[in-house]
Amino acid sequence: MSVSLEIPAQNRAAADACRAYLDTLTKPPGSLGILEQLAIRLSAIAGFPPKIERPRVLVFAGDHGVTAEGVSAYPKDVTPQMVLNFLRGGAAVNVLARLHGAGVTVIDVGVDADFSTLERPGTSAGADFVQAKVRRGTRNFLREDAMTASECSAAVQVGRDAVRAVIANGADCICIGEMGIGNTTAAAALTAALLNIDSDACAGRGTGVDDAGFTRKRAVLRGALERFRKSSSGALKSVGGLELAALSGACEFAASQRVPVVVDGYIASAGALAAVKANAAVAEYLIFSHQSAEPGHSRILEALDTRPILDLGLRLGEGTGAVLALPILRSACAIVAEMATFDGAGVSRK
Amino acid sequence: MSVSLEIPAQNRAAADACRAYLDTLTKPPGSLGILEQLAIRLSAIAGFPPKIERPRVLVFAGDHGVTAEGVSAYPKDVTPQMVLNFLRGGAAVNVLARLHGAGVTVIDVGVDADFSTLERPGTSAGADFVQAKVRRGTRNFLREDAMTASECSAAVQVGRDAVRAVIANGADCICIGEMGIGNTTAAAALTAALLNIDSDACAGRGTGVDDAGFTRKRAVLRGALERFRKSSSGALKSVGGLELAALSGACEFAASQRVPVVVDGYIASAGALAAVKANAAVAEYLIFSHQSAEPGHSRILEALDTRPILDLGLRLGEGTGAVLALPILRSACAIVAEMATFDGAGVSRK
Repeated sequence: MSVSLEIPAQNRAAADACRAYLDTLTKPPGSLGILEQLAIRLSAIAGFPPKIERPRVLVFAGDHGVTAEGVSAYPKDVTPQMVLNFLRGGAAVNVLARLHGAGVTVIDVGVDADFSTLERPGTSAGADFVQAKVRRGTRNFLREDAMTASECSAAVQVGRDAVRAVIANGADCICIGEMGIGNTTAAAALTAALLNIDSDACAGRGTGVDDAGFTRKRAVLRGALERFRKSSSGALKSVGGLELAALSGACEFAASQRVPVVVDGYIASAGALAAVKANAAVAEYLIFSHQSAEPGHSRILEALDTRPILDLGLRLGEGTGAVLALPILRSACAIVAEMATFDGAGVSRK
Repeated sequence: MSVSLEIPAQNRAAADACRAYLDTLTKPPGSLGILEQLAIRLSAIAGFPPKIERPRVLVFAGDHGVTAEGVSAYPKDVTPQMVLNFLRGGAAVNVLARLHGAGVTVIDVGVDADFSTLERPGTSAGADFVQAKVRRGTRNFLREDAMTASECSAAVQVGRDAVRAVIANGADCICIGEMGIGNTTAAAALTAALLNIDSDACAGRGTGVDDAGFTRKRAVLRGALERFRKSSSGALKSVGGLELAALSGACEFAASQRVPVVVDGYIASAGALAAVKANAAVAEYLIFSHQSAEPGHSRILEALDTRPILDLGLRLGEGTGAVLALPILRSACAIVAEMATFDGAGVSRK
């Protein structure tokens, strides 16, 4: 893995200022629950008062050699097809990002397709497109490491660079999502490897694989973890994915810049976990948005001692859960910015 | 209670059309979870495609004679003070409604104050104001019925009329909230009475009453329920509240007009429960927005076999939970309106 970035300490004075100010507002102390906690966390990350003005969704796309084992309900052609759908603005994440005022950037970090030969929309109606392909998909990690060390480092760097570019353009909040047929398998393998737990505890149905496929998926995960545990490779390189490595780099870089990261569901959380395992301080900059139905997600959330904002039964990825949490985060900011105080409004306290 | 309104049957054809259309969109079937369920429910209520363009928050305010027993952490003066705060636009519900594109109407159905003698904002910066006071607070329902039959009917009618007026002005979605010091006590008594359960199972800390106050609150609830169960009075009249009766009427009238009602936390749900107990068909038009920490709320949700959209630890009321669910409901509508189909986007299916 690349050399770690330096992660600044949280701004405790700003968090304390936010906590104290919230108790002057016309409501019983703490009665806005998670909104108040989010306002305090955003203050600790980026200062008081908390603000989210230019959120950006980064969708990292990559393919997975392990799909050769028949672990997914969809053919891997769907990865590039969905990238084009993102660029045209027709996918769920585009619709939600438009509604909730976020821009979208799609990053090809490892899709097994040559976009120069595919028909792309003339103007970027739906999303900006960053072509930073490290490799056309990972190797089949049941048989061999998914990536070489240099491929893995390059993919991490793609994530860092993507965040650097959108922050330079004014983004003050990064939502991370992904697209990659087969990536619940990679995320499950990565979770089991990073947390040193049984892979069966992390195996889920993904986009809806049938019983036979699910049996194969579990067997593939057990085999991949056995191979990983006998090797001296790092987890990300051995059983991860190009988009998972990029997600990890994105979390790390945003944290280094004091920019909050809104983490989507299971795959994004697995990438975030890789970043935290490499540098524990990154965790302070992560806001988990949505509870996934994938069993490995609960294991990650337990390991990081956190609870996501929403539980809407989503199992789509793309960053959809992260974008749906934006109106809640903006609500937390608006409460601080706009509510009246007890003294200002002449309302009696207890 | 007033004569029941006729509640139309749901539009099953529209629900089926929505369900079928959702499966043509570029995502695994069902992978948008509760968003898909909400799109289908909104279609069943008001037709396909589902739309929410002009949501309106109705905040019903009333006082409670039972506060004389010392059951609340706040003095009852806070009810009119908060009404003025709503009118100036400084309360949490105003801030959230502005952010999420909803108008606010505050209805005085029973505040123990004379607003004609209080300083009010010149223009309605924060909310429209409907003065429809039935009585300056309820009677102390530990000792006697909270309302007479005609007061209770009048309060129900205030709720119906408020919804009628905002629908006439173009509202296509009604968020219901409330303000009333002491009303978790009334909501707990009403829940226990309507569901015929022990009042201890419904008693919570409300806005944060201390141990001594909580002991009093439980004793008051037991006494009130004993009195109610020996009487032949209806639950709403006996142990309810003016705003609870109005909330009930609001739910009933919106349902009669095929307009969805987004129900806030515990108090609003208790009012909604009263409407459903009077007319079971009303339930089909209710969307529960937020899980309250008050123990009686879970009992209501179990009785209605439903689960709210959000669980953000709010315990404020005012309609805050309902307004926070609006961006989720709008997301459900946007998915249907804007996502690409598999065929249109050239994406492969399973």
